[in-house]
Amino acid sequence: MTSRQPSGIAGRLRPVLSGSVTDDPDVLAAHATDESLYSPVGAPAALVRAADADDVAATLRFAHAHGIPVVPQGARSGLSGGANAVDGCILLSLAAMTDVVEVDEANMTVTVQPGIVNKDLKDALRPHGLAYPPDPGSVAMCSIGGNIATNAGGMCCVKYGVTREYVRELTVVLADGTVTRLGHRTVKGVAGLDIAGLFTGSEGTLGVIVEATLKVVPLGPDPLSALATFPTVRSAAEAVSAYTATDASPSMLEMMDAATIAMVNDLGDFGLDDTVGALLLMQSDSSTAAADTEEFAGVAEAHGALDVAFADNPVDAELLVAARRSAQPAWEHHARAHGGGQLLDDVCVPRTRIAEFCDRVEDIGKDTGAQVAVIGHAGDGNMHPSVFFDTADDASVAAAQDAFDRIMALGLELGGTITGEHGVGNLKSRWLAAELDQGNRRLHREIKNAVDPTGVLNPGKMLEHL
Amino acid sequence: MTSRQPSGIAGRLRPVLSGSVTDDPDVLAAHATDESLYSPVGAPAALVRAADADDVAATLRFAHAHGIPVVPQGARSGLSGGANAVDGCILLSLAAMTDVVEVDEANMTVTVQPGIVNKDLKDALRPHGLAYPPDPGSVAMCSIGGNIATNAGGMCCVKYGVTREYVRELTVVLADGTVTRLGHRTVKGVAGLDIAGLFTGSEGTLGVIVEATLKVVPLGPDPLSALATFPTVRSAAEAVSAYTATDASPSMLEMMDAATIAMVNDLGDFGLDDTVGALLLMQSDSSTAAADTEEFAGVAEAHGALDVAFADNPVDAELLVAARRSAQPAWEHHARAHGGGQLLDDVCVPRTRIAEFCDRVEDIGKDTGAQVAVIGHAGDGNMHPSVFFDTADDASVAAAQDAFDRIMALGLELGGTITGEHGVGNLKSRWLAAELDQGNRRLHREIKNAVDPTGVLNPGKMLEHL
Repeated sequence: MTSRQPSGIAGRLRPVLSGSVTDDPDVLAAHATDESLYSPVGAPAALVRAADADDVAATLRFAHAHGIPVVPQGARSGLSGGANAVDGCILLSLAAMTDVVEVDEANMTVTVQPGIVNKDLKDALRPHGLAYPPDPGSVAMCSIGGNIATNAGGMCCVKYGVTREYVRELTVVLADGTVTRLGHRTVKGVAGLDIAGLFTGSEGTLGVIVEATLKVVPLGPDPLSALATFPTVRSAAEAVSAYTATDASPSMLEMMDAATIAMVNDLGDFGLDDTVGALLLMQSDSSTAAADTEEFAGVAEAHGALDVAFADNPVDAELLVAARRSAQPAWEHHARAHGGGQLLDDVCVPRTRIAEFCDRVEDIGKDTGAQVAVIGHAGDGNMHPSVFFDTADDASVAAAQDAFDRIMALGLELGGTITGEHGVGNLKSRWLAAELDQGNRRLHREIKNAVDPTGVLNPGKMLEHL
Repeated sequence: MTSRQPSGIAGRLRPVLSGSVTDDPDVLAAHATDESLYSPVGAPAALVRAADADDVAATLRFAHAHGIPVVPQGARSGLSGGANAVDGCILLSLAAMTDVVEVDEANMTVTVQPGIVNKDLKDALRPHGLAYPPDPGSVAMCSIGGNIATNAGGMCCVKYGVTREYVRELTVVLADGTVTRLGHRTVKGVAGLDIAGLFTGSEGTLGVIVEATLKVVPLGPDPLSALATFPTVRSAAEAVSAYTATDASPSMLEMMDAATIAMVNDLGDFGLDDTVGALLLMQSDSSTAAADTEEFAGVAEAHGALDVAFADNPVDAELLVAARRSAQPAWEHHARAHGGGQLLDDVCVPRTRIAEFCDRVEDIGKDTGAQVAVIGHAGDGNMHPSVFFDTADDASVAAAQDAFDRIMALGLELGGTITGEHGVGNLKSRWLAAELDQGNRRLHREIKNAVDPTGVLNPGKMLEHL
């Protein structure tokens, strides 16, 4: 599939790069996918590890001139196949561009290269008394560039919002290698179209981010936490609706169902009560944290909570969050032991529909015969049902695919969206076409064709079926 | 200029509209401009008052087919000429489409037609215990559609952000009359490109908004307020930088210079001390309002405040805000008495550069001989210098234009933008070309050409010189 001769892509790019380029088949194979399962993967022709923006520009100029697809990659921690290789592509890795370019304490911004890992950025800001809130589940491995490219969310969105709300200015390389600066560093700015916002969440289809200036916030106090257990998912979901209607401002409000609780306990010694139907985990880091936590306990008890436990010190609180963060590893552990297959949904519904959503997801599991477990950023209505299957059993695969699809259809039926934070990638590109109306699909095509007329940027992904 | 025969635009559109259309010259003249002064105005051919989305679609289909420019208009309260007529255009007024379509208390959204006035929306939400925060100075007359089209700001942005942060879903009519729905109603959503965000702030150049679903927040308590006076603008500006670096969360942080204070006192009986160099007005509506206000007083005194006054009841607080809201009327009153000319800048700079900005604006006034007064959303670095001149005196006009331009150049030099919230319109379209780099200008052209290939939507405005 790939050429290793000097006249191949790698050989022709090498002289113009400060970073490296390889077409070693083992290296290419190791870099061909993100963390999604069951998403299509092609055979890449080369891997460029960009050392700087000039490398990105040189790679894109070359690809544009020769009509070679380019797949931008950060930490490859995505869950929708957005960073997966397509046949004959150049994998363009930004992972080595990890500099913190500037911390502007007084104006509360930070400027970074795209490859920096989210957690490393948080750690770099802490000595300055600053924080970058967005916290995807993959916070310890995902890159900021990838976070921006997918407009990533996380557990703190219920209070702090998503990545887009932190993006001030982007330096991007366009399809033909042109470097341009988008957005504004100031708190406000309306000079021209919001093209920085358009590139945020564009999943590598419009350009490649080489630098970002992000809003940061004062580092807050340690949060207070509470965990409530419920007899059923429905009672927990109803408590969420009731609690979000109060004036409390939780910085986290997460749900976990019984199946997931059992899998988390199976993975590690988290001591969760696995006789319950569901649990809710909340935190508040505001000055009203004590009142927020009390209010949560009151609402939980009014909705039939079996138990409410509090964590009033950082160590205990971190243990609770660690259990929540273990859900995805626990699911993977479970999948590996039961045929290896997992499909992860990411539906966001109106908060008032969470209970109905969970009930009907359970029905979908029964109807299809697929095992389904659910966690969710319940405070946002962003639910993650995980469908398990045996990859060696065609009937199991088909049942899982059916369940996965029916969950997205259900999300749309309830007034929601097929993806709250993971993005479309190639895993949900057909479903994107179902979510958007005809005019919106046309706008997507028109904008893509205008900005990337030769279509070299991440083809076969988000926009494939529009 | 216009045809009043049945075969003219009005005569041909009338049969397909539920609303009205006129080409009466007096009516057209009365609707040809927004509130900007000294911005170019053309001669419109017709005014359509749309009754519903179908009227908007019918008007755009007609205009698209015949290559007739369309200028969308809301309340025409804009300050940059964005809603001004161009020669031969159809003025497309959304002012009659004022319905509140749905208040969803549980999911905290409201769906409205574009013509509803911002204050009317606030009033409609109050009985539900909800609030829509964005509050342009023109809150009592500006329309929500216009707020979205300009991504409007206001005085509460320092805490609550700008309009974009409240836009969830838009129904828009495209240039050829296609109706499409953009964005998502849910708290989170990343399905496809953020085209709803792209249309927000696009000043009528990409499509016409006919419905919007907006995020709302719980109605907060009455704010506490404080007013501090300073010997100089510099000392006030330094207090702003110091205060925004604390952990206080003010919901308003406004500055007014001595010239404006004098003009406000000249307009009405506000009792402001006009012997001072500048004043700061702050509010906090958070649960820590008392501490926020105390902290403000402490910071102000540490930076040489002459006096700090507190308003601990809604009536007194409203009086302070009324003085601030009177700045623009007071400026207009002053302008009318001194030759009639006013040019209003809207530069946003990094908060740390406010003092330098104000010093140098004063120098620009001295250099050019133009009188300049300054107010600003100081907490955001969004400053509004107002340049006064005698419209009958060519030298005065030239000096004012020079000062107006030099203030924008200064904003860019200090790392800021030419417009923080008023938009580009036709008043600053040449300066937009100066702010954006070559690649960014190209992206603007490409996107505009792709979405509105015949260029009928609001030509001669924001994108004119890119």
